[in-house]
Amino acid sequence: MTAEEKLLRKIEQHKHICVGLDTDISKIPDHLKRDENGVFNFNKEIIEQTVSEVCAYKINLAFYEKDGKKGFEELEKTLEVIPDDIFVIGDAKRGDIGNTSQMYAESLYGHFKFDSVTLNPYMGYDSLQPFLNYSEKINFILALTSNPGSNDFEKQRLAGGEYLYNLVIKKAQEWNSKKNVGIVFGATNPTELETTINSFGNLWVLLPGIGAQGGNLERIVSVFCRAKNSNFIINISRAIIFAENSRNFASAATEKLADFNTQILDSLNI
Amino acid sequence: MTAEEKLLRKIEQHKHICVGLDTDISKIPDHLKRDENGVFNFNKEIIEQTVSEVCAYKINLAFYEKDGKKGFEELEKTLEVIPDDIFVIGDAKRGDIGNTSQMYAESLYGHFKFDSVTLNPYMGYDSLQPFLNYSEKINFILALTSNPGSNDFEKQRLAGGEYLYNLVIKKAQEWNSKKNVGIVFGATNPTELETTINSFGNLWVLLPGIGAQGGNLERIVSVFCRAKNSNFIINISRAIIFAENSRNFASAATEKLADFNTQILDSLNI
Repeated sequence: MTAEEKLLRKIEQHKHICVGLDTDISKIPDHLKRDENGVFNFNKEIIEQTVSEVCAYKINLAFYEKDGKKGFEELEKTLEVIPDDIFVIGDAKRGDIGNTSQMYAESLYGHFKFDSVTLNPYMGYDSLQPFLNYSEKINFILALTSNPGSNDFEKQRLAGGEYLYNLVIKKAQEWNSKKNVGIVFGATNPTELETTINSFGNLWVLLPGIGAQGGNLERIVSVFCRAKNSNFIINISRAIIFAENSRNFASAATEKLADFNTQILDSLNI
Repeated sequence: MTAEEKLLRKIEQHKHICVGLDTDISKIPDHLKRDENGVFNFNKEIIEQTVSEVCAYKINLAFYEKDGKKGFEELEKTLEVIPDDIFVIGDAKRGDIGNTSQMYAESLYGHFKFDSVTLNPYMGYDSLQPFLNYSEKINFILALTSNPGSNDFEKQRLAGGEYLYNLVIKKAQEWNSKKNVGIVFGATNPTELETTINSFGNLWVLLPGIGAQGGNLERIVSVFCRAKNSNFIINISRAIIFAENSRNFASAATEKLADFNTQILDSLNI
């Protein structure tokens, strides 16, 4: 099953939420903080209880890398408990000169076997090409991100009149000959989403920024609904996985996910 | 000793070369390919033989991450054999939303204890701030990189007339209130270096692109010499560490490093 097939199966069921496993050990329940494999056991319970209702999982490498080889062990074990037919994004925001990006691609696609990664476009085409060579994966290129700093460079107007992020979207289309490219578009930018969505074509769209970052789920979904575009994945991390700081964290997360799924169905008028 | 003090001590000795430990297992000598800790043992020999003649080492995380927890173990062991007074750059090109960059900063500065990192500016100030909070480190922000893809976005002209990389350099100056910011400027862009060097102020400059990527060492050093700017570090990876594919790889690397050091002294007219 290709990465896109995994996604399409979920989108047909109107499942659009990606649960972000940004598992910060300082925020997990106390009984797991004392557990030597606390991060893995936290993830395992979240996955077991939410898996039938998610569109995908997104694993943020920073939260694992920070513990060195121990963190990567917890990451590797986490990946093993996610069923093979579930789409998993390696949120790494990589991008480097060609021979280095080749190593990152071997890391994320070869070693960890993610279905998808997030990529930073700053260094241009050859910094992304080793990832784009993987035709059965989905490569999400940062266009307009959800954070305040998106004003510094992404929203700079170019001499041609368009913003930098518009040019990234245009290039993402050009680089999509293998139908394996998507973009990251922050859900905290609904106005820009409305004015830009018609330029997305059939790129997959990953939208972070709902939940802790304050994006409005209903508004975002309505924009996609009006544009008759269902190629969107909404990532929610902290607002789901840290819904309750107790032994019941996983069922609280599942309830929160169900609420978000209901909101999406309502916004899609289904 | 702060990161900057480590650097200054070497710069005073006119040592400007950073040896990049981009240790690709497929390129190390055969006897080490068969060694379970081949990457670490390769690095250890290179470090032992070159340490007195380097300005710094740069470790490219991609080459370790690609082997998961095993790779990180070799990285951790490599860092242990580099003397404490030697400047070590974690070449990671990170940058993410604030709480994630905080984790990457804890990874690279807290866990691995690098003196310095490379950062990608695309997502703007708050994506870099957690790193900039470390006042005793040096944060190299990508300005103009050495690869062909630098034409795609970095060399885009903004509405105000300057190129995107010029704006990054300007912002790097603004963000340098703790005197812990530097820029990455590809040595494959000598003309742009000449026209831009006067805007660098006292930012440290890390220059990749000499060696395998084709940059001209003499020309680059001459530009810094004429500008009376000695805040530069020239990274060379493959051309040094893979100078010879035999059991004598480390002494061949040391000879190659000595040649480059001599070329620098010549270009500085010392």
